[in-house]
Amino acid sequence: MTPATLESSVDQLLPVAAGLFDEIGRRTTRDGAICREPFGPGEQIAADLVSNAARDLDFDVAADLAGNLHIKWDALGNDVQTCMTGSHLDSVPRGGNFDGLAGVLAGLIAVAALRQAGLKPCVNLTALALRGEENAWFACNHIGSRIALGLFEPRLLEEAKRYDTGLSLGHYMRDAGFDLQPIRMRVRSITPARVRSFLELHIEQGPALVNAGLGVGVVSGIRGTLRHRSCECHGAYGHAGTVPRHLRHDAVAAVADLIVGMDRYWVQSETSGEDLVMTFGQVATNPESHAVTVIPGEVSFSFEARSHSRRTLDQAEKTLQDSAAAIGEKRGVTFLLNPPSRSDPVPMDATLRAELIKTAEDLGVPTIELASGAGHDAADFAEAGIRSGMIFVRNPNGSHNPEEAMSMEDFRTAVLIMASALATEATTAD
Amino acid sequence: MTPATLESSVDQLLPVAAGLFDEIGRRTTRDGAICREPFGPGEQIAADLVSNAARDLDFDVAADLAGNLHIKWDALGNDVQTCMTGSHLDSVPRGGNFDGLAGVLAGLIAVAALRQAGLKPCVNLTALALRGEENAWFACNHIGSRIALGLFEPRLLEEAKRYDTGLSLGHYMRDAGFDLQPIRMRVRSITPARVRSFLELHIEQGPALVNAGLGVGVVSGIRGTLRHRSCECHGAYGHAGTVPRHLRHDAVAAVADLIVGMDRYWVQSETSGEDLVMTFGQVATNPESHAVTVIPGEVSFSFEARSHSRRTLDQAEKTLQDSAAAIGEKRGVTFLLNPPSRSDPVPMDATLRAELIKTAEDLGVPTIELASGAGHDAADFAEAGIRSGMIFVRNPNGSHNPEEAMSMEDFRTAVLIMASALATEATTAD
Repeated sequence: MTPATLESSVDQLLPVAAGLFDEIGRRTTRDGAICREPFGPGEQIAADLVSNAARDLDFDVAADLAGNLHIKWDALGNDVQTCMTGSHLDSVPRGGNFDGLAGVLAGLIAVAALRQAGLKPCVNLTALALRGEENAWFACNHIGSRIALGLFEPRLLEEAKRYDTGLSLGHYMRDAGFDLQPIRMRVRSITPARVRSFLELHIEQGPALVNAGLGVGVVSGIRGTLRHRSCECHGAYGHAGTVPRHLRHDAVAAVADLIVGMDRYWVQSETSGEDLVMTFGQVATNPESHAVTVIPGEVSFSFEARSHSRRTLDQAEKTLQDSAAAIGEKRGVTFLLNPPSRSDPVPMDATLRAELIKTAEDLGVPTIELASGAGHDAADFAEAGIRSGMIFVRNPNGSHNPEEAMSMEDFRTAVLIMASALATEATTAD
Repeated sequence: MTPATLESSVDQLLPVAAGLFDEIGRRTTRDGAICREPFGPGEQIAADLVSNAARDLDFDVAADLAGNLHIKWDALGNDVQTCMTGSHLDSVPRGGNFDGLAGVLAGLIAVAALRQAGLKPCVNLTALALRGEENAWFACNHIGSRIALGLFEPRLLEEAKRYDTGLSLGHYMRDAGFDLQPIRMRVRSITPARVRSFLELHIEQGPALVNAGLGVGVVSGIRGTLRHRSCECHGAYGHAGTVPRHLRHDAVAAVADLIVGMDRYWVQSETSGEDLVMTFGQVATNPESHAVTVIPGEVSFSFEARSHSRRTLDQAEKTLQDSAAAIGEKRGVTFLLNPPSRSDPVPMDATLRAELIKTAEDLGVPTIELASGAGHDAADFAEAGIRSGMIFVRNPNGSHNPEEAMSMEDFRTAVLIMASALATEATTAD
């Protein structure tokens, strides 16, 4: 297989992907937005169309116990490892057509192109179409990949409730015809030791590639998260016209001090080369007690930070706590910072990163390495001990909204890079 | 009349005030708070009890066209000016017993004590019990005094609606038996040129006296107000995990910058001796769109500043606008600062201030001058061109709440100072 034959095969298969984007998009649009609910009709429509297309391309397709589709090129029988690639079928409630689906179709046509181009692999290859990745529905992440990898916590079948109906994940899975018993027993459908690597293509959810003027990027890792959902600052209410500055316990002034102080810390942290983003997404005085003419006595707010580095997150948490204590002292207010929820950073595999970068170079495609701020299925494969890598495709409009966008030209470039890297993986002896 | 005879008369009359505080308080308590609604049953109960007590003390009592009670010691007939003193009968919806009533009863017993002590005035004296001072009911200030002084805007009879019922001020006044026709024609019941001065006693609504360890203070003036009720900051929503700092348009970070910047300006302004208080009383991200994991794209907030000096208010407004513009530029956000509503500062009469301070000194009572951050009837008398002065009584718990407090000892001291100053006013030839 030469680079030219692979490129020609990818170009022949691109219309299959374009047709699927179009048909799946049309058939899962509701009220002007994409809706592919996990273990519900939207996701199933996508699964059926992908499955039919894969069979039309002469692949074996098997659904595992979570309904993930395994589109298999079992070139060499059971005695060898498998290289996997893919992403998820589902979307957020009012989503776009590319978050997830781009990686599913990229995996499908990359594996098909490699077979068609005459690759002689020393492993099997599987394109995956995973289920239930989006947190938005059940406040529970990456359901399909975690069940497949044996990482899923079975109690979530009952505990995780869908945000709009209040019905459990287990209810929806049973309704969709799944057998919950093996999931409760943590039966795996992917054995990590039998998987050589996992590659995922995804649209970028931030603006870094657009800003850099690049079509594709290589993901260095998935940031860990430190999250305070509901912090409070308590001061004292008072008459806005009569209490002098030095006698105030102004909760708004105190929270503003904290936000500005953390922003200053962020600038320092960036200057010293650390990977960090931080957000105070929700801030509010108490609508039951606040008034234009009353010194605010209470503010509620949220805080989150994300980083590649656990140490950077530890440092951000310490800075938040120390700043709050100092401001509390200075302004006579009390901060209640509940213990944060945390997820650890997940680095992508160094060899795969290098392979993806080298492949892009060989193809003459300029690219950068960038951090993923959001979670992805690749994080679960990495958590299971599988070497994982990701490639991002430029998207000017952010994700999780109907305006998500991706040009077929950028998609083609990214699929070509991924297929080439997959070829290297699939032909290199252990 | 000697200081000793005045003191003894005040002491004889204090039980009358104490009895009225007690009975009016008891009879206007609803659900654990004072409720004396203007032109409604609560205020009327207070008016009736004050009126009866004044008649028991042998005063003529007349209600004017807004129902303000004029408790008159007409010592010298129609050819001389009148010295007036008093305050308001009404309270906020869930108020305390002393805001307003303390000044009404102080006026009543001060005039009674002067008469009993044998003062030989060269003017008449009137204690006033005014109506509808509190803004909380009709979002419309000092109704009784403004009608009496001819300052009231008649269209407010229809336009001002009670916050809880939506019914107009005119509706309540008609219901209470008032004739609106002369109010519409701006007939005055107090002719400013016939009034020599107006003195008002009021509980302090801030903590300055408590903090200074003093029972009484002399008011230097009533602060003017600059008020932005509903400002907005518009940035751009974005994924909290994926958008780097330099590409964010974070509305929370921008508003925090503004609040901290204005606080810094306040410190500078205080250091250079200016009179200023400022408050961001309401702040909120948009609950329809905000999330812990989303960069906040919108914040609404309020701002107000108060000062003795119109120039200081102008400067605060300019600083707010300039800061918002600079931050907007820096962070790529837009501030919408609606035109502010303003009220001008009202200085108290210099001679009266000096008289009150000297009287306190003569009585051996330590005192300070302090600004009033809230509006008072005295501001309307000053606006009408009447020399006006105020004295504050210590109150540890803020005003406009059921916990308002005032010791009878502080009240006695303040009444004594006010009565002595009134004696000076009433006996000094023009």
